[in-house]
Amino acid sequence: MYSVSVRDHFMIAHSFRGAVFGPAQQLHGATYVVDVEFRRADLDADGIVVDIGRACEVLKATLGALNFRNLDEVPEFAGKNTTTEFLAKVIFDRTVAAARAGLLGPGADGIETIKVTLAESHVASGSYEGRLA
Amino acid sequence: MYSVSVRDHFMIAHSFRGAVFGPAQQLHGATYVVDVEFRRADLDADGIVVDIGRACEVLKATLGALNFRNLDEVPEFAGKNTTTEFLAKVIFDRTVAAARAGLLGPGADGIETIKVTLAESHVASGSYEGRLA
Amino acid sequence: MYSVSVRDHFMIAHSFRGAVFGPAQQLHGATYVVDVEFRRADLDADGIVVDIGRACEVLKATLGALNFRNLDEVPEFAGKNTTTEFLAKVIFDRTVAAARAGLLGPGADGIETIKVTLAESHVASGSYEGRLA
Amino acid sequence: MYSVSVRDHFMIAHSFRGAVFGPAQQLHGATYVVDVEFRRADLDADGIVVDIGRACEVLKATLGALNFRNLDEVPEFAGKNTTTEFLAKVIFDRTVAAARAGLLGPGADGIETIKVTLAESHVASGSYEGRLA
Amino acid sequence: MYSVSVRDHFMIAHSFRGAVFGPAQQLHGATYVVDVEFRRADLDADGIVVDIGRACEVLKATLGALNFRNLDEVPEFAGKNTTTEFLAKVIFDRTVAAARAGLLGPGADGIETIKVTLAESHVASGSYEGRLA
Amino acid sequence: MYSVSVRDHFMIAHSFRGAVFGPAQQLHGATYVVDVEFRRADLDADGIVVDIGRACEVLKATLGALNFRNLDEVPEFAGKNTTTEFLAKVIFDRTVAAARAGLLGPGADGIETIKVTLAESHVASGSYEGRLA
Repeated sequence: MYSVSVRDHFMIAHSFRGAVFGPAQQLHGATYVVDVEFRRADLDADGIVVDIGRACEVLKATLGALNFRNLDEVPEFAGKNTTTEFLAKVIFDRTVAAARAGLLGPGADGIETIKVTLAESHVASGSYEGRLA
Repeated sequence: MYSVSVRDHFMIAHSFRGAVFGPAQQLHGATYVVDVEFRRADLDADGIVVDIGRACEVLKATLGALNFRNLDEVPEFAGKNTTTEFLAKVIFDRTVAAARAGLLGPGADGIETIKVTLAESHVASGSYEGRLA
Repeated sequence: MYSVSVRDHFMIAHSFRGAVFGPAQQLHGATYVVDVEFRRADLDADGIVVDIGRACEVLKATLGALNFRNLDEVPEFAGKNTTTEFLAKVIFDRTVAAARAGLLGPGADGIETIKVTLAESHVASGSYEGRLA
Repeated sequence: MYSVSVRDHFMIAHSFRGAVFGPAQQLHGATYVVDVEFRRADLDADGIVVDIGRACEVLKATLGALNFRNLDEVPEFAGKNTTTEFLAKVIFDRTVAAARAGLLGPGADGIETIKVTLAESHVASGSYEGRLA
Repeated sequence: MYSVSVRDHFMIAHSFRGAVFGPAQQLHGATYVVDVEFRRADLDADGIVVDIGRACEVLKATLGALNFRNLDEVPEFAGKNTTTEFLAKVIFDRTVAAARAGLLGPGADGIETIKVTLAESHVASGSYEGRLA
Repeated sequence: MYSVSVRDHFMIAHSFRGAVFGPAQQLHGATYVVDVEFRRADLDADGIVVDIGRACEVLKATLGALNFRNLDEVPEFAGKNTTTEFLAKVIFDRTVAAARAGLLGPGADGIETIKVTLAESHVASGSYEGRLA
């Protein structure tokens, strides 16, 4: 199994609901450093898993839609805790949609699984991994 | 599959038995930077894999029992080489026990697998991964 | 010149005023990974620059007063842009105050300069460095 | 499942063929920081996955055969794009060959899978993972 | 003293002349991860050392002029060894020129010193530091 | 001012004397990841601060003399606490001695200052910086 991974980041404000979150129930924020890993069994005719340039562009666009926002005010997330692992799934879903829309190029048809990891600090991270097809 | 990972460290002395270890047969030591990753298929009702605060506390307590010790004098490890990969399994077992004792909170019931990785330097690490149930 | 450095982090929400900040004028947030470096010409009688345990406690307490807050609502920062470099100075000032209050231990009298660095992502950071005395 | 991972690096020149590569079609180069991870279900009699010393030597020798070269002039790679993911497979194959030749020691018989990851920068990497047997 | 630092990277081919370089006399290449640090005694009216957005754009443009090239064919470097420390000075000079041309914004007038660091691997780096004025 | 920095590591056991050290008074150990930075105002005729190959060899030899040892039994350190910052000075002194003995090559005459940094974990480090001449 081959993989390629690209990294970028975004910075948001949010708060959580639920006693389990303690002081994180207050409005605070985070920088998320995001790795998106694309996996497939074989390389395409160019010898790649995915065009790294396009992968970086898709990641930048995906994170750009979230960057510099207060996630508490994003209608799509109403009633949800936008935890690190929840956001990993959001970015996974949007990356899958971008791949299906052809934004990763034609060779991206061969991608089998995608893993999205968000580091929220030097000591904690969350991820979501799933199939593309 | 979702995951959450937390990091802490501990510092110990030990020695190894066996020609394969060369100069590491002498009494020396190591700092281990430890990542514990918790994985599950679905988030709990709060939108989390595990309470990161509790995960950090469990990890600190687990490593605290080993920290600042000479592992050659720990009865539990008698006759064993406390290699990086061996210690990864020790910490895995103790994390599993903590989870079963409820120390990770009720939502931790959904955790399926745990991976413990110990970096012994900037160029070498060891890990153990297994099922919680 | 000797130094010792310790690391911790905090997570906040804030917004900036001024066209130079572009989309960062919106309410967003950041994780800051903070390094505080203490420097002095000679070691104390114990052979240290500063008690690392106390340095970690002082750093945790200093960051704890900011952690999980919306800095736009902190009276002390009214009318200020809480940029990375501005916050480095805030943490510097509070660390100096803690040192003068004896919270770093008696040996801390020998510390000459302190440097506080805040990494706001994997690609950007800010710092403030000044004298303790 | 246990693992042990070791790290080293190599520096090469190369160029790519194919419009997808854009300016990377020009002769350029890269530093690759390489992690080789060895995995097995059980530890050997010494309590290890693999002799880390031997693993480091095998990795150094494997990378040494590529280091400081122009990969466009390596006959074995003629007609191929020596992308990060392609090179991960090359290093995987050579590590497998070294293991079979006994260069990792007798205990290496128990290794089940190997994963080779090449970081080409702080924001991009590629990998190949496969079975040893 | 305040500072702000931004990071980006570039990938080049080159060779060195001189017995001291050993096998690096062959055509090879490198990824350089570049940090540019801007320092000044006081913050500007917006509370910043430099506009991070502009600093990132200047760095990207500066590295873009070198990226994906064979430095042996760059007329400006004829007869020079484009070592890590040499390239740090090249990027320093070009950053200074950009600052003087106003590309860092009007507030950049207050910048006193700039330090450029190039990491060529996980174990080696070079830098150049000098005054802006 | 130019610099070049190289990295390696060593692993030791030791204990400390003094109430300030708390549980670190027990025999324990550490991995130290060591950066040695060489600084000079001008490059030599080859365009370098120091021969990186020789610098790496000197560092490996310097650390090799400490690696896999119990520092409590090293006569040279009797009566001393081998703290991170103390060891930074030890390695500084030995690097200076190596430079004066010509082990860094003839071009090393131009080196003005050396900084040695030891990271003892992902959250703490110590350093010593001084003049070579």
